[in-house]
Amino acid sequence: MDKNKMKHLPHKTIERLSQYRRALLLCHAQGQTHIFSHEIAKIQHITAVQVRRDIMLIGYTGTLRKGYNIEELIALIGRILDTDEGIKACVVGIGNLGRAFINYFKGKRTKLSIVAAFDNNPNKVVKNFCNTETFHIDELERIVKQKGISIGIITVSPEAAPEVTEKLVKAGIKGILNYTPKPVNVPAHVYLEEYDMITSLEKVAFFVKTHSE
Amino acid sequence: MDKNKMKHLPHKTIERLSQYRRALLLCHAQGQTHIFSHEIAKIQHITAVQVRRDIMLIGYTGTLRKGYNIEELIALIGRILDTDEGIKACVVGIGNLGRAFINYFKGKRTKLSIVAAFDNNPNKVVKNFCNTETFHIDELERIVKQKGISIGIITVSPEAAPEVTEKLVKAGIKGILNYTPKPVNVPAHVYLEEYDMITSLEKVAFFVKTHSE
Repeated sequence: MDKNKMKHLPHKTIERLSQYRRALLLCHAQGQTHIFSHEIAKIQHITAVQVRRDIMLIGYTGTLRKGYNIEELIALIGRILDTDEGIKACVVGIGNLGRAFINYFKGKRTKLSIVAAFDNNPNKVVKNFCNTETFHIDELERIVKQKGISIGIITVSPEAAPEVTEKLVKAGIKGILNYTPKPVNVPAHVYLEEYDMITSLEKVAFFVKTHSE
Repeated sequence: MDKNKMKHLPHKTIERLSQYRRALLLCHAQGQTHIFSHEIAKIQHITAVQVRRDIMLIGYTGTLRKGYNIEELIALIGRILDTDEGIKACVVGIGNLGRAFINYFKGKRTKLSIVAAFDNNPNKVVKNFCNTETFHIDELERIVKQKGISIGIITVSPEAAPEVTEKLVKAGIKGILNYTPKPVNVPAHVYLEEYDMITSLEKVAFFVKTHSE
């Protein structure tokens, strides 16, 4: 699949490919060699039609009798999601959420790694956390450039989010994942993904409310 | 808006209403009384058409000259998202992520509160965390029933997620927010929302990769 074609894959397909890979890696670890679209669908709580459509979009088909070859599909999704050189990310804000992210991510993917964490509190950067080097926020630009970091994960307090975003953009970061409930602004060349825990909880609460008697 | 009509609001609209309220509360705190759809759109990085469509769906309209009345809109969204009695949630897994969630949520919404946290490690439940009572996981069913908790937030290790889900469902929980990368299964009467940090980071990485020269 060439890069230009990849560019036009829907955002939601990219998300699901990442989830399919996660499911496939699990099945692969359990010794399974083939899988049907409806099996993937069941794990991911979506329809088999959706799974087949996504996998068709990346130019792969299974056989009627055995379904998809798990190893082949893992490799293909890897060629789409990963880069050969690998992509480096950093966390800004070494609080509970920043620590959770680093801890969680440790050793999960070889092509994507969190190589630095920043904080404005000098006490939080005295030693490394889970093998991730920690630095004072004032070092952000220098370290981002030196290490070739292209993604910044924002886990600071909401008030600090706009300033941190500015610093990351100035340092040359290409993608930002904002975990604070404060929406931030980035220039067009920077890809932004925002996630607010409160919104998720409010959504679940709404469905609990409307679907109970 | 009656409950039956509410039930049919699209999931994405619910998410955005929560985000609109967050933006409106911020503007309100700064003394602003009215707001145009394009201003909300700008904060949320979406189109003004989308904002108007969502707000029309909940039966509200602004004026051409001044836009929406912020106080009225906050109250209306509250009537949709909140319940009079309030909804209680609990966190299962008092690690970094569970702590981040409790800390983050503290005092944010009056109608939705995290009233208990559980862990299987006795050392983690010796004292309360951020005014949230902590309990051993063995007490889950008793406490959920006693306190009338209807939402469970899973922040344990992925391996433990299915077992914790089962315990929550058995205890009578109505909604689950699963923050582990392990998809879980729930019966039809339980609403499930899953979020995987790795997927979000892989998505950002994909766009960084395909949109760089």
